Amino acid sequence: MSAATLFESLAEELEERIHSGVLAAGDRLPSVRQACLARGISPSTVFQAYYLLEARGLVEARPRSGYYVRKPRRARGGPLAAAVQAPAATEVVISELIFDVLGSTRDAEVVPLGSAFAAAGLFPLAQLARCGARAMRQLPPAQLSAELTSGNTRLLQALRRRYGQHDIALAPQELVICNGAMEALGLCLQAVTRPGDVVALESPTFYAALQALERLHLRAVEVPTDPRLGVDPDALAELLARQKIAACWFMPNFQNPLGALMPPARKKALVALLAHHGVPLIEDDVYAELYHGIRRPRPAKAFDPAGGVLHCSSFSKCLAPGYRVGWAAAGRFAPQVQRLKMMSSLATAVPSQLALAEYLEQGGYERHLRGLRQALAASMARARALVLRHFPAGTRVSQPEGGYFLWLQLPAGVDTLALHREALEQGISTAPGQLFSADRRFRQALRLNAGHPDDARVEPAIAELGRMAAQIQRRARP
Amino acid sequence: MSAATLFESLAEELEERIHSGVLAAGDRLPSVRQACLARGISPSTVFQAYYLLEARGLVEARPRSGYYVRKPRRARGGPLAAAVQAPAATEVVISELIFDVLGSTRDAEVVPLGSAFAAAGLFPLAQLARCGARAMRQLPPAQLSAELTSGNTRLLQALRRRYGQHDIALAPQELVICNGAMEALGLCLQAVTRPGDVVALESPTFYAALQALERLHLRAVEVPTDPRLGVDPDALAELLARQKIAACWFMPNFQNPLGALMPPARKKALVALLAHHGVPLIEDDVYAELYHGIRRPRPAKAFDPAGGVLHCSSFSKCLAPGYRVGWAAAGRFAPQVQRLKMMSSLATAVPSQLALAEYLEQGGYERHLRGLRQALAASMARARALVLRHFPAGTRVSQPEGGYFLWLQLPAGVDTLALHREALEQGISTAPGQLFSADRRFRQALRLNAGHPDDARVEPAIAELGRMAAQIQRRARP
Repeated sequence: MSAATLFESLAEELEERIHSGVLAAGDRLPSVRQACLARGISPSTVFQAYYLLEARGLVEARPRSGYYVRKPRRARGGPLAAAVQAPAATEVVISELIFDVLGSTRDAEVVPLGSAFAAAGLFPLAQLARCGARAMRQLPPAQLSAELTSGNTRLLQALRRRYGQHDIALAPQELVICNGAMEALGLCLQAVTRPGDVVALESPTFYAALQALERLHLRAVEVPTDPRLGVDPDALAELLARQKIAACWFMPNFQNPLGALMPPARKKALVALLAHHGVPLIEDDVYAELYHGIRRPRPAKAFDPAGGVLHCSSFSKCLAPGYRVGWAAAGRFAPQVQRLKMMSSLATAVPSQLALAEYLEQGGYERHLRGLRQALAASMARARALVLRHFPAGTRVSQPEGGYFLWLQLPAGVDTLALHREALEQGISTAPGQLFSADRRFRQALRLNAGHPDDARVEPAIAELGRMAAQIQRRARP
Repeated sequence: MSAATLFESLAEELEERIHSGVLAAGDRLPSVRQACLARGISPSTVFQAYYLLEARGLVEARPRSGYYVRKPRRARGGPLAAAVQAPAATEVVISELIFDVLGSTRDAEVVPLGSAFAAAGLFPLAQLARCGARAMRQLPPAQLSAELTSGNTRLLQALRRRYGQHDIALAPQELVICNGAMEALGLCLQAVTRPGDVVALESPTFYAALQALERLHLRAVEVPTDPRLGVDPDALAELLARQKIAACWFMPNFQNPLGALMPPARKKALVALLAHHGVPLIEDDVYAELYHGIRRPRPAKAFDPAGGVLHCSSFSKCLAPGYRVGWAAAGRFAPQVQRLKMMSSLATAVPSQLALAEYLEQGGYERHLRGLRQALAASMARARALVLRHFPAGTRVSQPEGGYFLWLQLPAGVDTLALHREALEQGISTAPGQLFSADRRFRQALRLNAGHPDDARVEPAIAELGRMAAQIQRRARP
């Protein structure tokens, strides 16, 4: 067993004991010396495990004393509530509202709290442009048509190496490069469904998943999702026993909009449960690189020996927005996905692919990611503090361990679609909760983008938003 | 009336007289002086009209004598036959064969007679790379997210100008930039159909249209298509009267694989017929810039006041293969297409779009196109002469006025799928006729790519192919 696996399995074991209550809040973890002796592992392995638990917010270090189990994290007003399950599959017709709301986030004059993207200034755009020009000039013309396949060879190799770092061995033809993760996810969805099928989504879910279902004439069923731990495995098991589900589309790492991070053991169980029922898992993993802790969380794909996970990700959130380069590692469905890709858009832009291949080969990616993670973690902490200070009492806010979204549950009486509209008049966009469900639940919820650390308009805008919410609440009182 | 329109309408009128037999083969056109006097137009306008008719192969200049109507062009063995109409709508399941055959064209060792692309060396790739790098370095980061819309503003403007040159005024939000024409066509198709609908295609048709239908669970009905003039209007009218058709997907300019060029009057009548029945026309116009005559043929879109034509094109065949930039000018369906684009792949790669915008603003495009057209016309003429010399007696070959495909009809006994397989063993790819129909007609036909003028392997390969066809024919005889 490698050192990486050793410390991870120790962390996992302790995490399970904490969640099951064997280790309660305030309990001290075994000392590093005890743990080394008991398990025959090195102190650094123990430290790595404890750091990981700390990054996940489960334990805290007390100076000269050791590591202690923290109180369960909660926002002001108590933990976020998991959503109740939808009674039946819903035909998806959410697009109008989504386009209406998102259209507003494209205006540069509007403070982008409703945007899905972090600030473009966080990314090494000039360097990417240089890489792209260099690589395109060196590409022999005849190779251009050879590139019209599942992707540029150099980029495929770079991606394969990154999967290897997580001990994920891909099949030789498994990767298909797509026009962003959105195309990859859509093609995976199409590969495993037929019109009319039912697909299980998280609740709340990323609105683009709802749009993809709508586009492919699929029906949605929403599975209760814990704001911290992700999809509820019991609810999912019950659903699978009751109803024919063609596929699941989940985001186990830093779920959009909740920020939930599914613990490794839960991922493993999820994959096993779905394999048992023969249901493919489409895994949207675009935020995984944006962890605020010490290590990239493994995807569900890492626990999938049977090829039932269609893992999708992209560079749009972590390196190269606007380049539209994503990919699918689609397990045993890869041949179908590859054909659907060829049938729907033939191939992905070669200049974008080559710019990324050249950049990744240069070796600055890890340094860029470290800076980006720090910037986003700090920005999120500031935004969260502002929400707690300025929003009405009773507002609950998520505390994600990665990504750049905060999920707010506002007190009764605050309709967030109304808040969105009022805010937009003040030049502030938001993403109201109704966007994140096929049947427009989450009327009191709101997703805020905390990924614009250098935008001086953001902090006053959050304060202003809090005041507006309080006003709406006052107006709603009888 | 502008000069452009004047000479075009004169050419159109003469073309109609030729087709209707009023002007017969050998008849002399009015002298330039007569025409000027009779119509009150300038000599240069008359010359332009006659050049156009000459480029279309309808008239020929005789030194010191004037312009004469040519004998109807025909390949050896008589004109290509229009296909009979399919008896009923067919569910499309052609993909396996298409992937099988096309997989072979990607190998650089194989002579690319079956390829869909012209040689990449014909395109200004180094210049495009420089343009892309310059434009990307100058793009303010914050604009990147603003670019995630229907397309880059500069590129949209450049495209709009080109439409304007053909007197096509687009509605303000009509253009949507896509990941190649293939995505544009697929989105247009989806915008106007529901699963199970019937779509009319040419016969033979571009195999990607068959794949798009298959992917969207649509059924195909194939309309007889004249190898020179395109879709048979009478057959189409009869079909529309008989059956509910959700959309037509046609290529009026240099149809793939036939090379047919629909005359302007026929385009106009086609648009009117479809408008009468309320049937949208998806117009694939990717080869229009590759005319071998003197002027770009106008698209059907130019005859469409009602917004029923969804016009799609791209830069992949005429400027920037591998950049994956195409677009749809989708008439009254533009809002649906724009939403489907956002829902399926969000946006098109910004580096590719900016490279093209910068290149087009520089002004070298027309010069590049002139050189490209000359190279392709010469290459096509050489390839056609080789076919006539080396293929068995009774082989008929198209004589397109644009593009780079030849369509061959081989004599009885030559199964072109068998020929394809034998040729592939000798390192030569071909596109057998069966690819171009949902029910695998055209078993004696073959599409040859004549777009590789500098590839020394091409001419011996055509000769070798002819010998193989003769062998197969001999073997087939009792």
